[in-house]
Amino acid sequence: MRMTAMAQALTATEAPTDEWDLTAIVEELRQSREIANNIRHRGVVRELPSRDVMARFLEDITAVLFPTHFGRTTLSDDSIDYFVGNSLARALTHLQDQLRRGLQFAPEAHEPAGDPKEKAREITRAFAQELPAVRALLVSDLKAALSGDPAATSIAEILLCYRGITAIIHHRLAHALHRLGASLIARLIADIAHAGTGIDIHPGAEIGESFFIDHGTGVVIGETAIIGKRVRIYQAVTLGAKRFPTSADGTLVKGVPRHPIIEDNVVIYAGATVLGRVTVGRDSVIGGNVWLTHSVPPGSIITQAQAQNS
Amino acid sequence: MRMTAMAQALTATEAPTDEWDLTAIVEELRQSREIANNIRHRGVVRELPSRDVMARFLEDITAVLFPTHFGRTTLSDDSIDYFVGNSLARALTHLQDQLRRGLQFAPEAHEPAGDPKEKAREITRAFAQELPAVRALLVSDLKAALSGDPAATSIAEILLCYRGITAIIHHRLAHALHRLGASLIARLIADIAHAGTGIDIHPGAEIGESFFIDHGTGVVIGETAIIGKRVRIYQAVTLGAKRFPTSADGTLVKGVPRHPIIEDNVVIYAGATVLGRVTVGRDSVIGGNVWLTHSVPPGSIITQAQAQNS
Amino acid sequence: MRMTAMAQALTATEAPTDEWDLTAIVEELRQSREIANNIRHRGVVRELPSRDVMARFLEDITAVLFPTHFGRTTLSDDSIDYFVGNSLARALTHLQDQLRRGLQFAPEAHEPAGDPKEKAREITRAFAQELPAVRALLVSDLKAALSGDPAATSIAEILLCYRGITAIIHHRLAHALHRLGASLIARLIADIAHAGTGIDIHPGAEIGESFFIDHGTGVVIGETAIIGKRVRIYQAVTLGAKRFPTSADGTLVKGVPRHPIIEDNVVIYAGATVLGRVTVGRDSVIGGNVWLTHSVPPGSIITQAQAQNS
Amino acid sequence: MRMTAMAQALTATEAPTDEWDLTAIVEELRQSREIANNIRHRGVVRELPSRDVMARFLEDITAVLFPTHFGRTTLSDDSIDYFVGNSLARALTHLQDQLRRGLQFAPEAHEPAGDPKEKAREITRAFAQELPAVRALLVSDLKAALSGDPAATSIAEILLCYRGITAIIHHRLAHALHRLGASLIARLIADIAHAGTGIDIHPGAEIGESFFIDHGTGVVIGETAIIGKRVRIYQAVTLGAKRFPTSADGTLVKGVPRHPIIEDNVVIYAGATVLGRVTVGRDSVIGGNVWLTHSVPPGSIITQAQAQNS
Amino acid sequence: MRMTAMAQALTATEAPTDEWDLTAIVEELRQSREIANNIRHRGVVRELPSRDVMARFLEDITAVLFPTHFGRTTLSDDSIDYFVGNSLARALTHLQDQLRRGLQFAPEAHEPAGDPKEKAREITRAFAQELPAVRALLVSDLKAALSGDPAATSIAEILLCYRGITAIIHHRLAHALHRLGASLIARLIADIAHAGTGIDIHPGAEIGESFFIDHGTGVVIGETAIIGKRVRIYQAVTLGAKRFPTSADGTLVKGVPRHPIIEDNVVIYAGATVLGRVTVGRDSVIGGNVWLTHSVPPGSIITQAQAQNS
Amino acid sequence: MRMTAMAQALTATEAPTDEWDLTAIVEELRQSREIANNIRHRGVVRELPSRDVMARFLEDITAVLFPTHFGRTTLSDDSIDYFVGNSLARALTHLQDQLRRGLQFAPEAHEPAGDPKEKAREITRAFAQELPAVRALLVSDLKAALSGDPAATSIAEILLCYRGITAIIHHRLAHALHRLGASLIARLIADIAHAGTGIDIHPGAEIGESFFIDHGTGVVIGETAIIGKRVRIYQAVTLGAKRFPTSADGTLVKGVPRHPIIEDNVVIYAGATVLGRVTVGRDSVIGGNVWLTHSVPPGSIITQAQAQNS
Repeated sequence: MRMTAMAQALTATEAPTDEWDLTAIVEELRQSREIANNIRHRGVVRELPSRDVMARFLEDITAVLFPTHFGRTTLSDDSIDYFVGNSLARALTHLQDQLRRGLQFAPEAHEPAGDPKEKAREITRAFAQELPAVRALLVSDLKAALSGDPAATSIAEILLCYRGITAIIHHRLAHALHRLGASLIARLIADIAHAGTGIDIHPGAEIGESFFIDHGTGVVIGETAIIGKRVRIYQAVTLGAKRFPTSADGTLVKGVPRHPIIEDNVVIYAGATVLGRVTVGRDSVIGGNVWLTHSVPPGSIITQAQAQNS
Repeated sequence: MRMTAMAQALTATEAPTDEWDLTAIVEELRQSREIANNIRHRGVVRELPSRDVMARFLEDITAVLFPTHFGRTTLSDDSIDYFVGNSLARALTHLQDQLRRGLQFAPEAHEPAGDPKEKAREITRAFAQELPAVRALLVSDLKAALSGDPAATSIAEILLCYRGITAIIHHRLAHALHRLGASLIARLIADIAHAGTGIDIHPGAEIGESFFIDHGTGVVIGETAIIGKRVRIYQAVTLGAKRFPTSADGTLVKGVPRHPIIEDNVVIYAGATVLGRVTVGRDSVIGGNVWLTHSVPPGSIITQAQAQNS
Repeated sequence: MRMTAMAQALTATEAPTDEWDLTAIVEELRQSREIANNIRHRGVVRELPSRDVMARFLEDITAVLFPTHFGRTTLSDDSIDYFVGNSLARALTHLQDQLRRGLQFAPEAHEPAGDPKEKAREITRAFAQELPAVRALLVSDLKAALSGDPAATSIAEILLCYRGITAIIHHRLAHALHRLGASLIARLIADIAHAGTGIDIHPGAEIGESFFIDHGTGVVIGETAIIGKRVRIYQAVTLGAKRFPTSADGTLVKGVPRHPIIEDNVVIYAGATVLGRVTVGRDSVIGGNVWLTHSVPPGSIITQAQAQNS
Repeated sequence: MRMTAMAQALTATEAPTDEWDLTAIVEELRQSREIANNIRHRGVVRELPSRDVMARFLEDITAVLFPTHFGRTTLSDDSIDYFVGNSLARALTHLQDQLRRGLQFAPEAHEPAGDPKEKAREITRAFAQELPAVRALLVSDLKAALSGDPAATSIAEILLCYRGITAIIHHRLAHALHRLGASLIARLIADIAHAGTGIDIHPGAEIGESFFIDHGTGVVIGETAIIGKRVRIYQAVTLGAKRFPTSADGTLVKGVPRHPIIEDNVVIYAGATVLGRVTVGRDSVIGGNVWLTHSVPPGSIITQAQAQNS
Repeated sequence: MRMTAMAQALTATEAPTDEWDLTAIVEELRQSREIANNIRHRGVVRELPSRDVMARFLEDITAVLFPTHFGRTTLSDDSIDYFVGNSLARALTHLQDQLRRGLQFAPEAHEPAGDPKEKAREITRAFAQELPAVRALLVSDLKAALSGDPAATSIAEILLCYRGITAIIHHRLAHALHRLGASLIARLIADIAHAGTGIDIHPGAEIGESFFIDHGTGVVIGETAIIGKRVRIYQAVTLGAKRFPTSADGTLVKGVPRHPIIEDNVVIYAGATVLGRVTVGRDSVIGGNVWLTHSVPPGSIITQAQAQNS
Repeated sequence: MRMTAMAQALTATEAPTDEWDLTAIVEELRQSREIANNIRHRGVVRELPSRDVMARFLEDITAVLFPTHFGRTTLSDDSIDYFVGNSLARALTHLQDQLRRGLQFAPEAHEPAGDPKEKAREITRAFAQELPAVRALLVSDLKAALSGDPAATSIAEILLCYRGITAIIHHRLAHALHRLGASLIARLIADIAHAGTGIDIHPGAEIGESFFIDHGTGVVIGETAIIGKRVRIYQAVTLGAKRFPTSADGTLVKGVPRHPIIEDNVVIYAGATVLGRVTVGRDSVIGGNVWLTHSVPPGSIITQAQAQNS
């Protein structure tokens, strides 16, 4: 802010009392932003995606997928398609604008070819096409929850009251966007899910049908994890990277497969940790709190040593 | 949606560009809902309970129980009963309507006898009667927190800043409703608590006075767990079912006692896992990260093997 | 509430039907509040700090620190300082009022000398002075995240999508207030962070620059923990107190150092538990799920025993 | 509120200070409501229609009629019908519930035959059928405004910035409901229009196509007025009843024709007052501030005497 | 704002582009406020009353007076007194704070003796005492509307749909406060009513029971007007001051009686203007558009000359 | 909307009951929009300015001009410039976007040369420059109100409680934009003012300093009116066009001077009507309800004939 001579004279005669020293602090913060601790993306200020808009998008899309559960309670057979179509149009409009913003933060290696606006339009269109398939997958997840949890009594209860279902709904949407190249927006959806459920699934993780997470708090699933069909996991399960050996020059190599492959029908109980690019063979059961860093063949049953009376 | 000949002519001559192909997607989603992936509760669309209304109910009831802590800051001795009475009436009105909705999703075995509306009224009335007793229990919990946490400095701090207290307030309300037969609404309250605290207590769990959960993230307490008086547990403790042996025909049996009994004065440290219908005898201490699947007598002290230097 | 004779006559002739028995319940709740379960702070009702106002404060202060990331998207070079100054002034006004309220709940031993209003003003002013330094620390944390997570692609992504960054932003603000004597308000900020991230850091914990928490759900860091520079921790890590031995007269001693000291460059993997006033020497690595209750020298690598095939 | 003995004892020993004497005032107000100044409709409390819901209904219906002007700005050719259909369904749902409430306040003479709920459904359906015709009339009004006001530059300006257009949109909707028997709801819409425009048109008034009100503040058009096509009126014009002669027994007779008939192509300038069941013949011009209580033939030009220099 | 040398250097090297010249405009506006066009009340900045808070107060008080019409629709006989008491307490709390603010703007002649805070408390208490009497007056007004308007069909319709009733509700509240010495707050209520109804009644005007304003837009009633019982007036009636003769030294004398006295049972038709301290005798009728500046005896019927055909 | 064969088959077998016949109505409305009653601006759909955003703009700008009256109540000498600068930046950002939209609806004759976006930027910048001068004018208006109304007691009361002041604040802003070529946005501001005050001033009207409108409801001031300094007008005054003689070919000529010129120091009392391009000479007084269609010399006093006793 430049000051005119007039203003300087004015402030000189006035000797304002600045109780909180606002002016000095504002100036120091500016200096911190612009010089000392500048974190601008490649030196330029860009419009960031909005968490609030994406949260609204998720509400709309969830209502599009399950309108009688998450839409207005007064929907009738006549009006439901208008509701779905209108919510979908609004959601896609929001998405397209947020995608455009997000694409400006792509890492250099994956720089989108051409105009972010055009790219955002393409991704939005492709994403919309996938929604019916996403809904089919989610219904398989709901049915897996109903048959997998003795405490569950109806699909309605599961849709309304299970954090694990919220997490998988958001993940399947985030994963679709991730595969289409919208990594930042996908990550933002994953973080919104994480904040609301305590379940942290990287959008890159590939997850097959009929997936069920019970309780869920503390679950972490890494970027390159691959999970088969009918897998069931419990709270605090980690499917992570085994990172002790760092790479040659000390920096971390990004993007290489480094998380587990979990084959069909596996169950992993609470607190189990599976690390590295290992494979848990189909039909295996991994017990609670188990720490596993090597592959196990199909049909394995892995348990922890028991606690002892001291 | 039926189309008249007029409209078909109109659209024929117009050849609208449908950038996102909305019409086709809306139709596929309808087919998914109605045919391919139909999840209607017993074939009919019913009005689901509303998470937002129940969240508002919890705000009102919490203010009814602790008006000087969660009500308007300007309450005086004169006005406080009007505030309590008005908040209570609004809360019960909301509850009664949500109960009516929720009762339509009861599993067939527990089908409510008679009119859901009448049943909702009965439950609401009975729930209201229990509020003073619930408040007394919660005050015992607050006092347990103050004496159990060296970092706690006042009841006010605990009410305002402890996730564990939020979880137990919500649980005691959910449990009262669960016992009165409102299982879906009770579950919804438990999930709201879970989302806000990372603590997942099934409404069916019975918990005695002076209960304290410290930190709390990742705690899971199952449907048939029974917890005595003056019990203290820490983050990531699981009181779960031991589910390796599945039932005869492959389906899971529902409702049988399958979670632990924790007797009076037990302390369970962070990350401990107790599974199955086992009993932890009174005055026992279960150490951090312990994995326990058998009963232990009163006064036991159970610890984990130490880690080793590699 | 006193009743006039007129009103008593009126109600006598009317015999109102009280479906929910509101009057009796309101009276029982009053008796519970005033007699049976009175929890007033030193016998007097005081104005509690407001969670909503503090949440608004955190939004404002976060935008003050990172205006191009959390402020309006239309900020320009001309307007940004006005935005920062205005948000800062509003935040400090809110803070000062909440501090005044919070100071009335100080434990007797730490009773603030003099007028809470004056004390609140002093703390607010001192807090404002520290903001540029807090920003510098947070930028070091952001850079640590970028270099420490193979999945991270930009500072923008980290600010927008990492729960761990939200937790550390809130902690550095809470810690500044804690050191200035505003313990209740600091605790409230910590609980807001806990509810939104699943990460529970006591405001008293001292944490050096370039700190990174990945995934984060279930992390607990105690009041007297001391963490050096460039430390990295993962989900479900506990830096807690070892509390088995209770104090002489059965009550817990408050305030003494009882949490770990973690020196520079330490990495602690998921689910590890470090308890008591032990020291983890610089450049050590603590493996996942490790349970550690003794000090380890610099450069240690501690791992858990492997699970076994049963 | 009845007081138990316990509560009376409690208040007796406590002698609460009631600064504002709330209890006594609440009791006096109750007595005023129930005895001294009871205004219950036929002795029973009924649910009143909601002004807020009807305001929302008007927003929705206005957007249904002119979606590119009052809907979301991002509507496209693909999404506009979904928007219209969804807004229409929501508006009709709101309307139907409000109609049901309103029908309970019908005067005895016009008591609706049968169930208010069924009657509300019928009116809603019939109202919906009329919307395309209402839109056609409104477009004629817009065109009349564009050709009738030298200051108007576009249809968009008129839709967005003319109080008179808001008034006529609301009137045409209120009139349709009035003719279908929903007099209270129609009146409520008229009052919402009155509050927002200063123009008070009774829903009973019949108004032909291409009607234009310029400026409009203070215009009053009575219940039985009949207005032809292409009529133009200005601010503060009254088309009222001439009420000096009261009816025989001193009470006012309701419902009889008592307001003017204005034929096609008439212009009435600001402040003119036309009273009683008189006819202003087609193509007449009534000058500003004119006071008219007798019929005038087609083609009349009526003016006021000029002011004089004193 | 003072600028440090550092900041000046910073801005010098940066040469920021200030598209809108914000800095210069902000400085000119400051100079305008502080020097050129300073309008501070007696040289000091004071906290103004808040229009929004007073609007909320009016909503609360209106619901207190007519809870079944303006309160929640779910009120029952049990809960209604809690609703009334709670709304009343909140309204009085708001009022007391706004009164305190408003009293600081009293003109010097009417300077409140003593502390504004204490004075605000006294006025609030006295105002609360008058509410039952205000309600009785308002019910007389409602009955006057029902008998005075041939188009009115029920009390409910009048409460819900008549601008004139809104105006008189607000006036009777404003007048009570005006008489208690709260002139600024009373004026603010009158202006809120004016904005919502087009009816401008000065809070000082004294109005007897059973008052009815039909249509109402443009009605103006001056500060010292006195209106008897059962008076009925129509839109655009002015009861004003006759101000052609200015006072001796050119300044306007304030506070002297200068508006009309309207005795019982008078009817004044639309657009009539009565100016100066004249008396309209009881049972008189003043015709539409009449201009009256002298007193008329009881039973007078005053009409305007007829318009003429030109 | 096109229907695929699949969907047609689906609906054929289903025979959905369409209670409100939504589909047919939506189609008729589309036909009405696109064919029968198409009102698109030059055949294209364009983004209209938003009334809500402009209302927000007016709140911001009013707070910029009078921050201690319309800004936060907690502003201090330190923070006020940040508040002003931030509100100004937000207001100008909103304005610029709305101007861009509005410029697309310009009539062909006044088509803006070049890009609407660039033109919007220019107008915004020029508008900002004028704000200090606008403030000076408004302070002259406030002082005129204080000296002109015997009931006014302070500048604060006038700013807070006078509809006439709200109208003139909005007019001076609208007029500045009108002169800069933003006619639609200016008109929208005028209509917002009209809706809130009952005062309808066309943005084109030129009004000198120290202007005062008392009561104001029903005031209309036309597009080409010119008003001198220190003019005072009352409710229901019209400064309009005399439109009886229509132009040659039957269409109305737009833009020519057709409203009165009011010279300095004129007072016009309630209900007076001045029509046509006449001049009211300086220091004249126009009495209430006067009808004036010819010029009068300086110093004239014009009154209406008195009413008569019938």
